[in-house]
Amino acid sequence: MSVFWNERVNSLTPYIPGEQPRESGIIKLNTNENPYPPSPAVYAALRDAAVDTLRLYPDPCCTALRCAIAAKNGLQSENVFCGNGSDEVLAFAFGAFFGKERLLFPDITYSFYPVYANFWGINYREVPLGADWNINIKDYDDCSGGIIFANPNAPTGSFLKISQVKTLCSLALSKNAVIVIDEAYSAFAAETALPLLLKEKFPNLLIVRTFSKAYSLAGLRAGFALGHKDLICALERMRDSFNSYTLDYIAQKAALAAVNDHNYLDQTTAKIIAERERISAELKKRDYEILPSAANFIFAKHPALSGEAVYESLRSRGVLVRHFSKQRIKDFVRISIGTKEQMDALLNAAP
Amino acid sequence: MSVFWNERVNSLTPYIPGEQPRESGIIKLNTNENPYPPSPAVYAALRDAAVDTLRLYPDPCCTALRCAIAAKNGLQSENVFCGNGSDEVLAFAFGAFFGKERLLFPDITYSFYPVYANFWGINYREVPLGADWNINIKDYDDCSGGIIFANPNAPTGSFLKISQVKTLCSLALSKNAVIVIDEAYSAFAAETALPLLLKEKFPNLLIVRTFSKAYSLAGLRAGFALGHKDLICALERMRDSFNSYTLDYIAQKAALAAVNDHNYLDQTTAKIIAERERISAELKKRDYEILPSAANFIFAKHPALSGEAVYESLRSRGVLVRHFSKQRIKDFVRISIGTKEQMDALLNAAP
Repeated sequence: MSVFWNERVNSLTPYIPGEQPRESGIIKLNTNENPYPPSPAVYAALRDAAVDTLRLYPDPCCTALRCAIAAKNGLQSENVFCGNGSDEVLAFAFGAFFGKERLLFPDITYSFYPVYANFWGINYREVPLGADWNINIKDYDDCSGGIIFANPNAPTGSFLKISQVKTLCSLALSKNAVIVIDEAYSAFAAETALPLLLKEKFPNLLIVRTFSKAYSLAGLRAGFALGHKDLICALERMRDSFNSYTLDYIAQKAALAAVNDHNYLDQTTAKIIAERERISAELKKRDYEILPSAANFIFAKHPALSGEAVYESLRSRGVLVRHFSKQRIKDFVRISIGTKEQMDALLNAAP
Repeated sequence: MSVFWNERVNSLTPYIPGEQPRESGIIKLNTNENPYPPSPAVYAALRDAAVDTLRLYPDPCCTALRCAIAAKNGLQSENVFCGNGSDEVLAFAFGAFFGKERLLFPDITYSFYPVYANFWGINYREVPLGADWNINIKDYDDCSGGIIFANPNAPTGSFLKISQVKTLCSLALSKNAVIVIDEAYSAFAAETALPLLLKEKFPNLLIVRTFSKAYSLAGLRAGFALGHKDLICALERMRDSFNSYTLDYIAQKAALAAVNDHNYLDQTTAKIIAERERISAELKKRDYEILPSAANFIFAKHPALSGEAVYESLRSRGVLVRHFSKQRIKDFVRISIGTKEQMDALLNAAP
């Protein structure tokens, strides 16, 4: 508190990012980073970047990157918005599409959503996930203020079938409401909501994705949204009222190289999925409860110990996972999927 | 307009960045970029950046960069905030410090200020610059809602003496109001407001700076603020409610290298200042009105032609400058200072 803060900054409840320990030797399975390095094409793009060009402002429209993302997804560049990480894209989306009427999102989901809602003064209601940790679409009838959730969800890893997402899109459309599907982890799932844009052409659906997970570029800060051009235009209006050049020259170059290397993405993603299945089976043998995951992490509950105890036990043995103190999930820890060697170390260290 | 836009996005009046033409051969003097490349230390930092590290989230606190900026300016790291360009830093500052009471800024200044004010729903009043294009501090008595201006100002290039800035800081302090001095161009001026933090220790003064101009890193998107730790804390609260990791790993590395190469900054800045003085004298000989400039650009008025005509004439000859349609300054063009060769070309092309 300070006499110089206004009401807005006084009333904020900032997001708390996962720990980024700088000591070496820690096995870091706490922020869903990719254990594999970025595509070799990213290295080449960085090596070949014209540093002289840094003296100039970057392309504020991210033209080349948007065209590549559009081409990969069967869309036009007018259907693509690029931002400084998907967190920024989400921040603009909350600011542009939600407000006085009650926005709905699950009680257990990305913990930045209530932070954004408070930031923009958005009315919202947290809808409890079912006892099976899944979204029950019948709970979203009252969606005239919009809907947002992560699919796969975090930190549960659970996945709502696209046929059910479609029902929610229709419901929201009938109320002139926007539905945002946060697909940060969709590369690790069997389906995505993309056909709802390509075939069903829902004008109220915004899909948000990131370069931080499957593309292994968390350090680069790049994310994007896909949707009808009117939704993309709204995001551009937000950006150009806040910070016109959010994505720097080098990030645009590197993300472009990553998008165009489809094979590398497929290979590393397949390895992570295989490891997710192996580690889930191993921990189940030890009587852990493991929620079915469509993401690059698992949500795990020890048969006897609290989530905090599991977190502390692993931490003391050099393995960092994520624990959330929220009442309903406090018995769980979220474990990011690393390499086979890292996951073997986790199995050795796990209580 | 779209049925899916909320009131906020409907009511925005986005900023219009200067043109970024991609055709080659244009002499680009329209967005106050530096004509010289970044420091050789930046090249080395980029070459040595550990690309593998991009798989991890960057340090959200920008610790190393903040320490270097603090050391260079005689402050502590708790007095430094880093953001994704000074535009983002300014956006957070508007959101944190200004609101219901009337914010004051000059009628002729950085044209993003009214955009920010509208974005956050801030009450504001544009205070006309004097007939000499300078800020008259007596016009700022009613500053209980805060003050912001650029010093050197843009697009005029005029400079308010720090003794007068001090008077404004005292006045604002007496009303518990924040004063933000946007020092994007201060490297090209004779003084800065830094002593008002170091010696006078004004708790209500925030100084905002950028890597885009003197450091020649517009393409990198990095800026920072200096001030009392309570003001810095407010900016952190805004950031962590919007986008926790705004400055990517590579931008942090490159900006750090630039900060630490004091000599290069001094050399290139001296060349730009010398060229500014030469070109001002040459254009005055041709009866242009040239406002005294403390920045890396000049604001110039042709003895007979409108600003738009000068802009078009130069554009047709391959020289791009900036023209603003705002009534009071429509007879001027803003010309960024380039290399001697570029400015000779400007002189050849100028009507």
